[in-house]
Amino acid sequence: MKPELGVCYYPEHWPEAMWADDAQRMIETGITWVRIGEFAWSRMEPTPGDLHFDWLDRAIEVLGVAGLKVVLGTPTATPPRWMLEKHLDMLAVDANGQPRKFGSRRHYCFSHQGYIKECTRVAQIMGERYGRNPHIAAWQIDNEYGCHDTTVSYSHLAAKAFHHWLENQYGTIDALNEAWGNVFWSMEYDGFDQIEPPNLTVTEPNPAHVLAYRRFSSDQVVAFNKAQVDVLRPLTDVPLLHNYMGRELDFDHFKVGEDLDIATWDSYPIGFLSDRLEADDAQKTTFLQQGDPDMQAFHHDLYRAVGRGRWWVMEQQPGPVNWAPYNPAPLPGMVRLWSLEAVAHGAEVVSYFRWRQAPFAQEQMHAGLLTPNNRPAPGLAEARGTADTLAGMGTVTQVQAQVAILFDYASDWAWTAQPQGAGFSYFRLVFSAYRALRRAGLSVDFLSSSNFPTQGYKVILAPGLATLDSELEQRLSGACDLCVLGPRSGAITHDFQIPKAGRPGLSRLDCDVDLVETLPPNVHRGVIGGGAAQHWIDRLSGTGPDLLSFEDEAPALKGDGGLWYLAGFPDEALWDRVITMTAHQVGLSLHQMPEGLRRRETENHTFLINYNADPVIWNGHQIGACGVTIVKKDAPEER
Amino acid sequence: MKPELGVCYYPEHWPEAMWADDAQRMIETGITWVRIGEFAWSRMEPTPGDLHFDWLDRAIEVLGVAGLKVVLGTPTATPPRWMLEKHLDMLAVDANGQPRKFGSRRHYCFSHQGYIKECTRVAQIMGERYGRNPHIAAWQIDNEYGCHDTTVSYSHLAAKAFHHWLENQYGTIDALNEAWGNVFWSMEYDGFDQIEPPNLTVTEPNPAHVLAYRRFSSDQVVAFNKAQVDVLRPLTDVPLLHNYMGRELDFDHFKVGEDLDIATWDSYPIGFLSDRLEADDAQKTTFLQQGDPDMQAFHHDLYRAVGRGRWWVMEQQPGPVNWAPYNPAPLPGMVRLWSLEAVAHGAEVVSYFRWRQAPFAQEQMHAGLLTPNNRPAPGLAEARGTADTLAGMGTVTQVQAQVAILFDYASDWAWTAQPQGAGFSYFRLVFSAYRALRRAGLSVDFLSSSNFPTQGYKVILAPGLATLDSELEQRLSGACDLCVLGPRSGAITHDFQIPKAGRPGLSRLDCDVDLVETLPPNVHRGVIGGGAAQHWIDRLSGTGPDLLSFEDEAPALKGDGGLWYLAGFPDEALWDRVITMTAHQVGLSLHQMPEGLRRRETENHTFLINYNADPVIWNGHQIGACGVTIVKKDAPEER
Amino acid sequence: MKPELGVCYYPEHWPEAMWADDAQRMIETGITWVRIGEFAWSRMEPTPGDLHFDWLDRAIEVLGVAGLKVVLGTPTATPPRWMLEKHLDMLAVDANGQPRKFGSRRHYCFSHQGYIKECTRVAQIMGERYGRNPHIAAWQIDNEYGCHDTTVSYSHLAAKAFHHWLENQYGTIDALNEAWGNVFWSMEYDGFDQIEPPNLTVTEPNPAHVLAYRRFSSDQVVAFNKAQVDVLRPLTDVPLLHNYMGRELDFDHFKVGEDLDIATWDSYPIGFLSDRLEADDAQKTTFLQQGDPDMQAFHHDLYRAVGRGRWWVMEQQPGPVNWAPYNPAPLPGMVRLWSLEAVAHGAEVVSYFRWRQAPFAQEQMHAGLLTPNNRPAPGLAEARGTADTLAGMGTVTQVQAQVAILFDYASDWAWTAQPQGAGFSYFRLVFSAYRALRRAGLSVDFLSSSNFPTQGYKVILAPGLATLDSELEQRLSGACDLCVLGPRSGAITHDFQIPKAGRPGLSRLDCDVDLVETLPPNVHRGVIGGGAAQHWIDRLSGTGPDLLSFEDEAPALKGDGGLWYLAGFPDEALWDRVITMTAHQVGLSLHQMPEGLRRRETENHTFLINYNADPVIWNGHQIGACGVTIVKKDAPEER
Ligand SMILES: [Zn+2]
Ligand SMILES: [Zn+2]
Ligand SMILES: [Zn+2]
Repeated sequence: MKPELGVCYYPEHWPEAMWADDAQRMIETGITWVRIGEFAWSRMEPTPGDLHFDWLDRAIEVLGVAGLKVVLGTPTATPPRWMLEKHLDMLAVDANGQPRKFGSRRHYCFSHQGYIKECTRVAQIMGERYGRNPHIAAWQIDNEYGCHDTTVSYSHLAAKAFHHWLENQYGTIDALNEAWGNVFWSMEYDGFDQIEPPNLTVTEPNPAHVLAYRRFSSDQVVAFNKAQVDVLRPLTDVPLLHNYMGRELDFDHFKVGEDLDIATWDSYPIGFLSDRLEADDAQKTTFLQQGDPDMQAFHHDLYRAVGRGRWWVMEQQPGPVNWAPYNPAPLPGMVRLWSLEAVAHGAEVVSYFRWRQAPFAQEQMHAGLLTPNNRPAPGLAEARGTADTLAGMGTVTQVQAQVAILFDYASDWAWTAQPQGAGFSYFRLVFSAYRALRRAGLSVDFLSSSNFPTQGYKVILAPGLATLDSELEQRLSGACDLCVLGPRSGAITHDFQIPKAGRPGLSRLDCDVDLVETLPPNVHRGVIGGGAAQHWIDRLSGTGPDLLSFEDEAPALKGDGGLWYLAGFPDEALWDRVITMTAHQVGLSLHQMPEGLRRRETENHTFLINYNADPVIWNGHQIGACGVTIVKKDAPEER
Repeated sequence: MKPELGVCYYPEHWPEAMWADDAQRMIETGITWVRIGEFAWSRMEPTPGDLHFDWLDRAIEVLGVAGLKVVLGTPTATPPRWMLEKHLDMLAVDANGQPRKFGSRRHYCFSHQGYIKECTRVAQIMGERYGRNPHIAAWQIDNEYGCHDTTVSYSHLAAKAFHHWLENQYGTIDALNEAWGNVFWSMEYDGFDQIEPPNLTVTEPNPAHVLAYRRFSSDQVVAFNKAQVDVLRPLTDVPLLHNYMGRELDFDHFKVGEDLDIATWDSYPIGFLSDRLEADDAQKTTFLQQGDPDMQAFHHDLYRAVGRGRWWVMEQQPGPVNWAPYNPAPLPGMVRLWSLEAVAHGAEVVSYFRWRQAPFAQEQMHAGLLTPNNRPAPGLAEARGTADTLAGMGTVTQVQAQVAILFDYASDWAWTAQPQGAGFSYFRLVFSAYRALRRAGLSVDFLSSSNFPTQGYKVILAPGLATLDSELEQRLSGACDLCVLGPRSGAITHDFQIPKAGRPGLSRLDCDVDLVETLPPNVHRGVIGGGAAQHWIDRLSGTGPDLLSFEDEAPALKGDGGLWYLAGFPDEALWDRVITMTAHQVGLSLHQMPEGLRRRETENHTFLINYNADPVIWNGHQIGACGVTIVKKDAPEER
Repeated sequence: MKPELGVCYYPEHWPEAMWADDAQRMIETGITWVRIGEFAWSRMEPTPGDLHFDWLDRAIEVLGVAGLKVVLGTPTATPPRWMLEKHLDMLAVDANGQPRKFGSRRHYCFSHQGYIKECTRVAQIMGERYGRNPHIAAWQIDNEYGCHDTTVSYSHLAAKAFHHWLENQYGTIDALNEAWGNVFWSMEYDGFDQIEPPNLTVTEPNPAHVLAYRRFSSDQVVAFNKAQVDVLRPLTDVPLLHNYMGRELDFDHFKVGEDLDIATWDSYPIGFLSDRLEADDAQKTTFLQQGDPDMQAFHHDLYRAVGRGRWWVMEQQPGPVNWAPYNPAPLPGMVRLWSLEAVAHGAEVVSYFRWRQAPFAQEQMHAGLLTPNNRPAPGLAEARGTADTLAGMGTVTQVQAQVAILFDYASDWAWTAQPQGAGFSYFRLVFSAYRALRRAGLSVDFLSSSNFPTQGYKVILAPGLATLDSELEQRLSGACDLCVLGPRSGAITHDFQIPKAGRPGLSRLDCDVDLVETLPPNVHRGVIGGGAAQHWIDRLSGTGPDLLSFEDEAPALKGDGGLWYLAGFPDEALWDRVITMTAHQVGLSLHQMPEGLRRRETENHTFLINYNADPVIWNGHQIGACGVTIVKKDAPEER
């Protein structure tokens, strides 16, 4: 596969007279893809039923004729104001019971059937008009599901849909009461229609109730997306895709992804570091203008899994953004670095957001490749530079990694419902594992629990995996030489109960979680020989051998042959020890990486990616500040 | 009195086949009391009027026959879901005006008369059925009043009840306007029904309004409780009790306690340290797995007063809990230590919560004496060890202490309504005094302002006591050799005005508060000779002698004979000086205690209680890590 | 002008028998003005239409006969409770959609026409009764507009008024859609009545929408005030005024001020330092009992501009207050210092709040000149001392300063709507400039963008001035020798778009903002030669000369002749450099002031004001701790 570049463009924001020049400059920049249309409903249909697609016809034509492949978005993330007159109750409702009003975007409740019909109607119209248009090379459905905390709605319509969903899940109310343990605190229901969304309760609601509502809410997103897929499929032969948002965990991306052909995500490295990472101040300062060295790769690898191998960056940060607490500019080289890093992880397309900075509305301070008055912004030259590099490097082919991490959205919902300790977060735990693998120079695959290769991995990690039945245990064992579970793996059933067989309830390892402890951030439990656990401790018993022990001699890691269980949330030193131990057991070769330097192998290349503001020499290679060194596999990489 | 052990048990959570074995194991553990029933309404009455007490009959029988005394709870803290269909408006309303929904517990408004009738109905049914049952040895009414911030409701029904309450208090609206000073800001009312709950006002409401609402809300709890007492009294001869929650100050426990026979409280030392103490990080880390060394004793002494000598720990933490920000496990020995400490302070029964950890719902991560799969948890052996110790020590008899603290719930409401400084808290102030007395090795009694012994104390402290009339001043003087007031004692009238006679308005000491200052936490006002005041400064004048002075020569402590007034919120060093000075004046013998070691005297024993993770040697006694040394009074305690 | 003293008095709070004595003591204290009436509506009109002015007649008579000039307040900040029965929907609505209830003050929505009619009715009645009363020497309208966050209301009536306001502004909905860039995210409206207040949107609303709502809300305050002005003007010949609150920026004080004769403000130095300044802990500790050394002067200078030369302090803090997080007492001397500082800046009257501390309601802990039981509080002697000083110093005459700062309320609204960086605040930026000028010993004028002298300044600073058209650029250039803009000056159009001509779009300097960066507080961008920028960076290009450069050689200050543009938010060192550079260019003589010492020149005096708790010697003058040294101009001030 030969990676390409793209850009997000809003013809409706600019005079038509500029379009042709814009298209020409995109081509000159080395861009071959352009995404349009995803927020333009009010221009496609200014009043109900009054369709205005002529401008879009011409925009597609101008772009296509210039040589650009068009990704056309359905505009369903931005219903026009008139939609609310037709569907008075279409707004989502927040956890405080307030409707989330018009005036920005994503102002709809996923459970509003009337709005879903409007969405399929507009998708049908667009599909009929453009489904066979030769310039349309892909479709994007909606935009950034879940962004702005929009997956979960507490509306009356959501409550009603929840009743049906529960009835489908449980059949009878007695079954639900039993599954949730509603005998506790006399929470038993007499019928499904008594069950409200789990907000505004006096104290914490039943975590089984919360988890069910999170599952339901995720399913509503899947259904919403599928409704448009079903309309578009017969009308077009090109791929359907969606653009997911970084660290957005409120719905199951794997399930949405199953209905689509390509997964894409929106990568804002500097915004994410400022806005949604637990990194300490030192880390945030060091990488202030580069972004976290593992955050992008994590998502690249995750969406490669969501897209079953096919994935893009749909929106690549090209300069300072507007929405993070602090919005510094990328250091010179970073836009190219981010782009090439995506390519290293298998992106088919890296598409910049956006072509020209808008001079108005919410994102007027969000940089584009051009300034609002149409001059080149710093990102433009880096995009051109990226195109040059890509032109010189031939195809990039992904290979199955030796190690993988099982990633499970429902585990995040479960542990958010009941963190048990204020420092515990599923994402944080998995990310710490991912970081450790990357510090060891490894390439990593992500797996969904419902669907992964039946063999081929040396190691699979499944930290924090909430639910683990014997079928999954068996599949995991088959897929790898060594499976590392814990902490908090197999800790609950599907209905948020402690499993009758105990936690983690493994058939291949005698290991029981007798007790759980959570710790404040300043308290660490040291492990004999180095490293420590923090945040979370599973106190283990059982006959499985102790591979590591805490200083009080409690087991820190138990394991037998191909199955290990980690008894705490490891700090960096402990993760490094565990990774080294796995490497010894299964024969992985590790490459200890300096801070900020990362490594990614494809079939023919090794990418060395330097997030540091200074050059690094590693293994005989000099990698410039904010630079990428691409080593051909036939060349000697490591000495 | 010979202390006993108990446990909280939920037969409705487990197969009936397990009950007999459970009862047997309880007995083997040395447990003689079992509390049941308090959350089981949905099993007693699955649909309105459809009573199912057969299972409870059998549970009581099984437990009783095994030799256990049963505490039976009325299930009114957990109205079943069908109750809401009958009483649409029974939910409490939060300060933002939102109903507090079904889905956990305590989902009722204390002002809903319909719900109160349901509660007396179920109490009547239970009383008639079990009031003379020989196995029923006590009744618990409801559960943890006030927990989850449930005392104060802003519902329309509460507002209506408030009108009547005000009319009873003030007679005429003019009297109320005068009492509250409503001429200020034209807040005068034309009638009682215009007075809304004091939430959602533009800026702070009149503190007199807030204090009245807090008094009213407390009275609603008293009335709610009394309604069930009145039903049960004629139907049974065994004691009635309630289980209060730690640092729960929103209603007057003394007043609820007056209608009951025994006060019990729920003691979660580790959760409380994490969750509701102002301790600094160092203190929180040192005692992370033990709990604060004074917090439990404080409540033991307080509830001994609430129960007029009769009190229990109804729920004793047996391992990690689920509800604090961080939930570590108790160090080995702590469960026994907590139990014996309670005994030292006079507990008749220490009852563990709970027998077996539930595998479902909100508290599935709350340890029991047994694990969810029925294996011994660490607490079980410590309970057994406690039973052994108790068996060996004979009766424990309380004696009146030499020093006492006057504790006044309304003072907390007043100072919460108008803290004046962000660092001021009534509980924090009183707790600092209590700590100081305990650092000096003293046993302490608590007093309610309305009811205390007319003599016998050497010292009574009444810091922060909001209202002090001459009758109370006189009673205090009579009851002790030396009464220490201040800071902020006698600062307002019952209706939250500055007293016309000035603050504190003492008849026996010429001492006036001319000015009040509040200070940020990093600012201390040094006292000549050592120690400092923080948070709060009363600037004093008057002819009463200065016993201590601030560095600017303003009085820090004024006093004459039997009455002293402290001019600031003392830090530890200043408290220690003041306690030493009182000891010199009235002839108290002090025992300076090392950090974490505490001492409690009963008639025949001195208990030395070591909260430290290391052994301590004190006065020739070795007290093990997390251990208790009990010295017989005929043995030499202090050399 | 000979400055005088005043006091705020509430005859309705005290027995009539005390009034004459109070008046006598005021006169003895050297007080000549007394403000009354502004919260007394419930006593003027206890029930609708039932007027009771007899007590007020007598109070005015007693005060006037004693020799006091009376400021009479309209009581419209405190509508009585019965008003709500007449006007059910008069309450403002908060951003969460909740009505802001009765029970304190300012409980009205500025858009409620019915309430405005009540206000003009009461003003009419009062004007007719007292307009020609010889004791009434000024009128205050309402009290502290905007205080307690009351300018912006989200009520239905506000929404309706907003529609009309928008229609007036934009004429057609298409014009509005175009002006706001509503094509973005399909936010286009079909009619004005679809436009809701910008609260509760899913994610951030369009900043143009927010800015319009803020402008509208400010205009509602102006109209509210003007309605009473229009009633009173024909009925009286004495000045009309309003008392503004410190750091209250939610409406345009200049516009309200245009309809009035005198601007007054309420000065609470210690409360403000605790409550509304970004000062660090060290600064807050150093000046804990004095207040920030620049905060009062800033407001004095600002309100001198708002009052077009005529201004007072209407409420001067006389001791500890009740409303800040921490409320320490002023150090001895501070009440006099604050008073004389106000005089130095041109106050006609300094009026203490309040005469005697109230013993009831919300402000019972707010000190007065007398204690609640009528004894002298510390402030009384200082007021008397101030009167003595004033008596000895003759007239005080203001002169136009050499430097000025342009202050623009709409810029605060704009940058609050879209801060872009969490550390950016318009007030903070302007205040940092003001501090720097004062550190350099300069006297400062404030200017409103719509109205300032056409010449006479050496330097005008306009940092953060959101909108800068060529007309304003020209006027600024005419008015001074050197105008210093930036950072973030000229950054948006009136409708919150990036100007088509670019930012800042100057005609006299070739300087473009290509890119904007915002930085976390711990990150500084050093400037070659010293100093740094923080929070905000404008990355500049253009042919205008670089006067200062960042360490990466990007321009830090560009300028040419009379126009400079600063590329970042300066830290103290950078501000000092810039002020020094301006002084060199235009010939200003600077006086570097020690910490806490400030200097103010009038026609005949130089005031040296020492906020430090220790004496300072400066330029041969000894200024006592918390003292003021007043140097006659004919005496040698600086050697
Ligand atoms: Zn049309
Ligand atoms: Zn039945
Ligand atoms: Zn009347």
